Amino acid sequence: MTDPPTAGPPRSSLAVFRDPGSVAVVGASANPAKWGYWLARGALAGRDRRSVHLVTRGADEILGMPTAPSLAALPEVPDLVAVCVPAPQVGTVVDEALRLGVRGFLGITAGVPDAPALATRITAAGARMIGPSSLGLFDAETALHIAWGDFRPGRLAIVSQSGQVGSELAQLAQRAGLGISRFVSVGGQLDVTMADLLDDLADHASTTAVALYAEGFDDGERIFAAVRRLRRAGKPVLVLSAGDSEAGARAARSHTSALTSPAELVDAACRAAGALRVPTPAALVDVAACLMAGVAPRGRRVAILSDSGGQGALAADCVTHGNLAVPRFSAGLSAEIAGLLPDGAATDNPVDLAGAGEQDLSSYTAVARALLRSGEVDSVLMSGYFGRYGLDSAALAATEQHTATELAALPGRYGRALVVHSMGADGDTAALLREAGVAVFPTVGAASGALSGAVELDARQVRDTPPNAPDSFAPRGFWETRAALLGAGIIFPAARPVHDRAQLLSALAELRGPFVLKASWLEHKTEAGGVRVGLADAAAVTAAFDAMHRRLGEGTYLLEEQDVRSDVTELIVGARRDSGLGPMVTIGAGGTQAEIHCDTVTECAPVSPDQARDMIGRLRCAPLLTGWRGAAPVDLDSLVHAVVAVSRLVARYRGDRIELEINPLRVGPDGAVAVDALLLTSATGPVHETQGET
Amino acid sequence: MTDPPTAGPPRSSLAVFRDPGSVAVVGASANPAKWGYWLARGALAGRDRRSVHLVTRGADEILGMPTAPSLAALPEVPDLVAVCVPAPQVGTVVDEALRLGVRGFLGITAGVPDAPALATRITAAGARMIGPSSLGLFDAETALHIAWGDFRPGRLAIVSQSGQVGSELAQLAQRAGLGISRFVSVGGQLDVTMADLLDDLADHASTTAVALYAEGFDDGERIFAAVRRLRRAGKPVLVLSAGDSEAGARAARSHTSALTSPAELVDAACRAAGALRVPTPAALVDVAACLMAGVAPRGRRVAILSDSGGQGALAADCVTHGNLAVPRFSAGLSAEIAGLLPDGAATDNPVDLAGAGEQDLSSYTAVARALLRSGEVDSVLMSGYFGRYGLDSAALAATEQHTATELAALPGRYGRALVVHSMGADGDTAALLREAGVAVFPTVGAASGALSGAVELDARQVRDTPPNAPDSFAPRGFWETRAALLGAGIIFPAARPVHDRAQLLSALAELRGPFVLKASWLEHKTEAGGVRVGLADAAAVTAAFDAMHRRLGEGTYLLEEQDVRSDVTELIVGARRDSGLGPMVTIGAGGTQAEIHCDTVTECAPVSPDQARDMIGRLRCAPLLTGWRGAAPVDLDSLVHAVVAVSRLVARYRGDRIELEINPLRVGPDGAVAVDALLLTSATGPVHETQGET
Repeated sequence: MTDPPTAGPPRSSLAVFRDPGSVAVVGASANPAKWGYWLARGALAGRDRRSVHLVTRGADEILGMPTAPSLAALPEVPDLVAVCVPAPQVGTVVDEALRLGVRGFLGITAGVPDAPALATRITAAGARMIGPSSLGLFDAETALHIAWGDFRPGRLAIVSQSGQVGSELAQLAQRAGLGISRFVSVGGQLDVTMADLLDDLADHASTTAVALYAEGFDDGERIFAAVRRLRRAGKPVLVLSAGDSEAGARAARSHTSALTSPAELVDAACRAAGALRVPTPAALVDVAACLMAGVAPRGRRVAILSDSGGQGALAADCVTHGNLAVPRFSAGLSAEIAGLLPDGAATDNPVDLAGAGEQDLSSYTAVARALLRSGEVDSVLMSGYFGRYGLDSAALAATEQHTATELAALPGRYGRALVVHSMGADGDTAALLREAGVAVFPTVGAASGALSGAVELDARQVRDTPPNAPDSFAPRGFWETRAALLGAGIIFPAARPVHDRAQLLSALAELRGPFVLKASWLEHKTEAGGVRVGLADAAAVTAAFDAMHRRLGEGTYLLEEQDVRSDVTELIVGARRDSGLGPMVTIGAGGTQAEIHCDTVTECAPVSPDQARDMIGRLRCAPLLTGWRGAAPVDLDSLVHAVVAVSRLVARYRGDRIELEINPLRVGPDGAVAVDALLLTSATGPVHETQGET
Repeated sequence: MTDPPTAGPPRSSLAVFRDPGSVAVVGASANPAKWGYWLARGALAGRDRRSVHLVTRGADEILGMPTAPSLAALPEVPDLVAVCVPAPQVGTVVDEALRLGVRGFLGITAGVPDAPALATRITAAGARMIGPSSLGLFDAETALHIAWGDFRPGRLAIVSQSGQVGSELAQLAQRAGLGISRFVSVGGQLDVTMADLLDDLADHASTTAVALYAEGFDDGERIFAAVRRLRRAGKPVLVLSAGDSEAGARAARSHTSALTSPAELVDAACRAAGALRVPTPAALVDVAACLMAGVAPRGRRVAILSDSGGQGALAADCVTHGNLAVPRFSAGLSAEIAGLLPDGAATDNPVDLAGAGEQDLSSYTAVARALLRSGEVDSVLMSGYFGRYGLDSAALAATEQHTATELAALPGRYGRALVVHSMGADGDTAALLREAGVAVFPTVGAASGALSGAVELDARQVRDTPPNAPDSFAPRGFWETRAALLGAGIIFPAARPVHDRAQLLSALAELRGPFVLKASWLEHKTEAGGVRVGLADAAAVTAAFDAMHRRLGEGTYLLEEQDVRSDVTELIVGARRDSGLGPMVTIGAGGTQAEIHCDTVTECAPVSPDQARDMIGRLRCAPLLTGWRGAAPVDLDSLVHAVVAVSRLVARYRGDRIELEINPLRVGPDGAVAVDALLLTSATGPVHETQGET
C-alpha cells in the first residue's frame, strides 16, 4: 500500500513523487499548445486530494485557477515542484525553492545549463529530483498527474528513459484496453534513477506489471536487481531497449564479446531476472495484455480454434515459429470435438469450425470448453471472425455478446488461458471480452507473439546473482592464466616451461609426443610464427626449438603434449563482467570458425551445473555432443564443469573488469581439454577458484 | 483494359467472371444473417450495369426485388450463376443451368456431393466454374460484387485459397487506406485455378498490386509463371502461404531436402519471380501500403527522422534488423540539418528534432526535404508524434494538416519515398497523408517491416525459368551418378572399379595413395562397413580388400585416391525438382555436420554463374572460402561451376522427379572435388550434361 500523506516527506524518500500533500507547477500556461498548460491541467485533476498551485507571470488565471507570480508568493511551501520554465530560469527557480524548503522536484525543462551542479545542490539540501528533461509523472492511486497526455487508471506501470516512448507505450496500452497505474519519465536521472523508481514499484499496490524502456544499462546490475524483486513480488517486467548497435561488439577484444550483441546481454540479464525483452512498444503492450488477462498463459501447448482453415493454418505457423507447440489431440478429444461440429469440420489441432460458428455461435464456447478442460493443451488461441458477426449483422450482435460472456468465463473455470485474434477487435464484443479478462488482438501475429512472450516470461525462473564485488585492464600472462584455470579444475595438456636446450631435453623426458611448442609470452602466437604443432619426436622438437629461438629470442617457451584425439568437438567457453549488467558467461561452437557459426548462448554468471547443462542444450551444435551419427557421446560432465568453473571464476573476481576465454575447449568421450585460453583483468591480484568447490 | 461486355462470353474464357452481362443468385435470402442475403445485396449493387436475378422459393421479394422460383422461370439465360443453395441441391441447380445454356458458375456452397463429377459436367459443356466453396467474387471495375462483406474500390487485387483469409486481407487493407480492385476466393479450384485467376489480372487495368494466399503449391510452377508475368506487367505480388510444417521435410530422403522447409522453397520461387513472401495478413497489407504509395521505396539506405531520441533509436534498430542501412550523414548534410534545428537536436542519422517539431511543425518538412534531396539516403522513415498534435490540441490541427500536405509533396519532387510511423495513425492528418500517397503506420514495427519488404521486393529481378520438361523414383547406381556428374564437369578423385585381386593390383599401379576402398553398390556404405579410408600403401589396400570381400562378397568395389588436402572447406551442393515449384538448387555448409549448421541457400534452378556466386556469398560460412584467418582463398570458380552444373542437370532432366546431391564437395585453393554423391530419379533414361556448356 502507499504511504499515507505526511506533512513533509521524509528526507531522501521517493514518497514525495507518489503522493505529495501539495504541488506547484512553475511555468504553468493558459495556452493548450504549451507543456505548462498540460501540467497545470493534470495537476488540477488531483485538487480533491491535495493543494495545487500554479506559478507564472504570464496569466492571472489558468483553467479557472488564480496563479501566483512566484513560489515565495504561495501561502505554503509545496511538497513537490514541477519545473517547466525556460532553461535559463531553471536554476533560479530551484534555488528559490530550496531556500523555501521544497524537498521534491520534477524537472521537465530540457537543456538546463549546468544541470549536474544543480542536481548536486538539490541532493545536498536533502531534496530529490526526477529529471531534468522528464516528460512527467502520473500515479493513478493518488490522482497525481503532472505530464503531457491523458492516462486511464489501470494496472500497468511505465518507467521510461524516453518520455515519448513512455507516452507511446501508454497510448498503445490504453488502445489495447490496459490502464496505467503509474507513469514515470525518468529524464536525465541526475538524482533519482530508473533503478530507484523500479524499486519504488515493489509496494505500489495497483501495479501488476511493469513496462521498462531503457537506452543503456550502465546501472544494469541495480536495474535488474530491482526487476528481480518486482518479479518476486508477482509483478513481471517487460523490457524494451534501444541501441543494439555493433559499436560495442567491435570494441571488444575476445571472441565471446564479438559473438554477443548488446541485446543478447540484455536478454541474458532478463532471463536471470525473470523478465522479458521485447523489440517494439507494440510488442510490449501485446505481451502485457496477455500477462494481465484474467488467466495468464502458462505452458507451451496451444490449441488453435478457428472458423477458417486458412486462418487456423496461419495461426499454427505463427505459434510454432514463436517456440510454442500445436500438439495433435488424442483420439478421444478429437471425437468429442467431432460430436460438437458438423461434417467437414477439422477436429484435430488446429480445429476448423468450418461454418459451424456462423450457424450457431455457441459452437465456439462448446469447442473452447472441450479444449480448455481436456488437459491436452495449456491455452487456446481463437482466430477469425468471432467479434465481427455483430458488426456485420445487428441480428447477431446480442447472441455474439452472450457467447462472449460464456467464453470469458471458461479460463477462470479451467485455469487455462484463452487468447483471441478477432477480425472485429475494435467492436463491442471484443471490448466485452477484454473487460471480462480475455486478451483480444487485431492480428494473428500480435496474438501469437503475445502468447509466446507471456509463456516464455512465465517459464523463466528468477535466479539470484552474487553481490557485485568492487584497477589497468590487461592480459594476464600465459602461465598465470593456465594456473588460474587449473586451480578451477580445467584440464590442460601436460606441459613444461622451457628456456633453453637443457630444459627442453628434460621436458622431453617427462612428456609424451606428439608435441606442441609455443612462444608462450606472445599474444598473437600463430601470426608471429610462435606455434609449432605435430612435432613427433625429440629430433623434431629440438629442430623446431632451435629455429624458433633463433627467430624470437629468449623467453619462456612451452613444450606441451598435443591433444590428438579425433573424436572431439571444439567449443568456446568464455565469461566476462559487463560494465553495466555484471558477470556473463558464454558458450558456443568453438575453434577457429567460432565467428562463422555464431552459435552461442549467454547467461548471467555464475551458473549452476543444471543451468550450464541447459545452456549446452540450447546450442545448435548440441547434437554433436550426445552421439552424432554413431559417434560416442562426449563427457558432458567435464564440459558442464568447465562452464560452471569459468562462470564462477569471473563472477567472484574482485576487480571491476575481467574477460576470460577458453578456445578451443576440446571435448571428447574421455573429457575436456583446454588448448588455449585468454584472461584479461583490471586488477593484478590473484584470480583463482578452489577446485572441487563446484 | 478490360474486355467490353459481350452478348455471351466466349467459351472457356474467364471474362464471364469479370463482367457478365447478367447474373443470377440461386439461393438468395431475405435474412441478413444468411449468405444468400449478402450475395443478393452485392449483386444488386451492379444493377446499373447488368441484369440481376434472384432465385429462391423462400421469399417473393428481397431488398425490393421480386424473386423467381427457378432459373427456368427467368426471362433470360444469365451469363453467370452464383450457387448458394444447400449442398444436396447444388447438382440439380447446375444441371438445370447447363441445360439452359449457362456458361459461368460461381460455386459458393461447401460440401457439395460428388463435386469433381459436377465440375467435369460443367467443363464438358464448355462452361467454367470458380469454386465450389468460394466465398465470392468482387470486381471494382465492373461493379461485380457477389460476396459476403463490403469492398471499397481501389488498386489491390486479392486472390485467396481461403475465403476468410481473403476477407481478412481486404479488411486490413481497407483499414490501411487501400481499396480493392478485385477479390476472388478461389474455393476448391475444380475448374478455374489460382494460376488462371492470377493470369487474368495481367490486363486488369485498375490492379497495381496483388495479394495471394495459397495453402499449397501443387500447381506452383504455373502459379509462379503467372506471378512472374504480373511483376513484368508492373504489378508486384505479395505471397502469404500456410502450412510450413515439418512433415514434408521428414519425408525427404536427401540432406538438402531435410535442410529446407516448405517456406524456404516458396521463398526461392518468390525471389525468382520477383515476388515476396510475407508471414501474416497484416504484414502483407503493410508491405502493400508501401508499394502502392505515391513513390514506392527503392534502395536500402534509410534516414530516420523522429521527434524523440528513443523512438529514433527504436526505429533504427527495427530498420537495421530488417536488412536496411541507417548510414551516417556527410558533414555537409549534418550541418544543413543543424542549421534547421535548435541546439540539442541530433543532426546525424537518426535525426532527433528534440522538441523543434512541437515548437514549429514545419521543422518536419524542412528536415525531410533536406534528407530526401540529399542523395545520401533512398528513403526517409518518420517516427513519432507527427499526426497526433492535431488530435491533442485543436489549435495545432490546421497547422499539422498544412504541414502534412507539404510533406506529402516531397516524395514526388525528389523521387524518394517517405514512410511514416505516427502515434496518431488513425487521425485526420494521417488520413490526409495517405490520401496524398504517403504510407502511414500505427507502429514502428509495421512501418519498418513494410519499408524493408517493399525495398526487398523492388530489388528482386524476375528470372526466367526453362520450360517445364515432362516415371519409379530410385537411386541411380554409384557409377552412373559419377558418370553423370563427371559429364557435367564435376571432378571426382581418380578411381577404378575392382572386382578381384588382379584388378586391385592393376588399379594400384595406376593410382596414387593414400587410398579409399568402397563397396560401391551399397546405399549405406559406412554403416555396413563398406568404406575404408587412409589406406597408405598396396599392403594396406590388399588386406582391406580381402577382409571386405570376405564380409560383403562379390560386387563392384571402388579403389579411389583419397583427397587429403587439409586446406579445404566442405560444402553440400544439391538440387531437386519440387513437385509443385519445379527445379531448385541448394548449397550449404556440408560434411557430416550439415544438419547442425543449417547454413543453406536455395534458389530456383538453373542458376547462372553470377547467381551461384550470389548464393555462395549469402552463406554464413562464406568467409571460410575467401581467405579465413590467413588461409589461402579457395578456387571459387570451381565451386560456382559445380553449383551451376548441378542446377542445370536437374533443371534439364526430362523425368518428373529427380534429387541430386554432392556431399561433401571439398573445395580448396586448387579446386573442388566431389567425395560422395547421391542421385535419385524417376526415369531410367540418361542423366547428363555436356561439359563446357555452361
